[in-house]
Amino acid sequence: MKLLEERIKKEGRVYPGGILKVDMFLNHQLDPKLMHSMAEEVQRLYSGTEITKIITVEASGIAFAIMVGYLMDVPVVFAKKHKSKNISDSVYSAEVPSYTHGNINTIVVSKEYLHSSDRVLLIDDFLATGAALVGMRSLVRQAGAECVGAAVAIEKVFQQGGNILRADGMRVESLAAVTAMSDDEVSFD
Amino acid sequence: MKLLEERIKKEGRVYPGGILKVDMFLNHQLDPKLMHSMAEEVQRLYSGTEITKIITVEASGIAFAIMVGYLMDVPVVFAKKHKSKNISDSVYSAEVPSYTHGNINTIVVSKEYLHSSDRVLLIDDFLATGAALVGMRSLVRQAGAECVGAAVAIEKVFQQGGNILRADGMRVESLAAVTAMSDDEVSFD
Repeated sequence: MKLLEERIKKEGRVYPGGILKVDMFLNHQLDPKLMHSMAEEVQRLYSGTEITKIITVEASGIAFAIMVGYLMDVPVVFAKKHKSKNISDSVYSAEVPSYTHGNINTIVVSKEYLHSSDRVLLIDDFLATGAALVGMRSLVRQAGAECVGAAVAIEKVFQQGGNILRADGMRVESLAAVTAMSDDEVSFD
Repeated sequence: MKLLEERIKKEGRVYPGGILKVDMFLNHQLDPKLMHSMAEEVQRLYSGTEITKIITVEASGIAFAIMVGYLMDVPVVFAKKHKSKNISDSVYSAEVPSYTHGNINTIVVSKEYLHSSDRVLLIDDFLATGAALVGMRSLVRQAGAECVGAAVAIEKVFQQGGNILRADGMRVESLAAVTAMSDDEVSFD
């Protein structure tokens, strides 16, 4: 998606360790019109696919997900990052290692909001190692629901998570596929 | 706003200690069409007011805020809950006691995304003690920007935070003003 790639080239910043900061429009400050355009692209990519629910992870996936949910007219559920070790029986849970922060988050979704009849689209801002998508897919599977695929804003292709998930049979769409990053340049597929 | 009040009456649940759970459509599962209608109401309430930026706090304010930002065509910045004690010089920060969780969160916004020329609308899902709005207003003031007011989805009027802020000169609009709650009923202003 050209619009997103251009914004990344213009406003994204590369930090040591393969970190791409897009705080200006996607992760801290949000550009609502861009989010809406991104959501339109997801709607186009998944047109013809029956979707009954969208799942994302707090916090930075929420804005993108709600725009997709609005256009598709389906509810959005955001998985919460769980703080305590005690996981209630009333939730589905999965462990998600964070590449950026070097820790492990447990994400949870209330059993009330995921049903075996659901056809779920996963939404997230970034795809790197794929850990967040694997965690969300696990929640969907625990509910006996079907994961129809994923849509992410930015895929860091060189970290392989997307390709591993595709090889595993998951449909993964990314709006901007970053193939290489250096201090002064971001390259796209 | 009738639509929101009806949803609260139908799907909200009251827990001991004055907790109103609206996980079904506002805090965990999100109803995008309802969010859009709520945002239209905020746009109507603040029509004629110049607004250059919207501030909210992660995570549950983000969906509402991005819809308002989309309709008003202004950027949205979500304040992050800061984990460590070390606050960088590059952010504005404020301490926000949480009524629900009984702890204190430090919220931060990068100095890059709040400027003295900004006219800021604060958005949040809940208003109870007013601590989150006070914290966000502090961020705005630290930047030398102007806080034009706040819009919240649900105000728990009996906790007085809204009235204290209004008495202090802040414009505070709530879409559903809960005056009383019991196990089997939620009453509105």
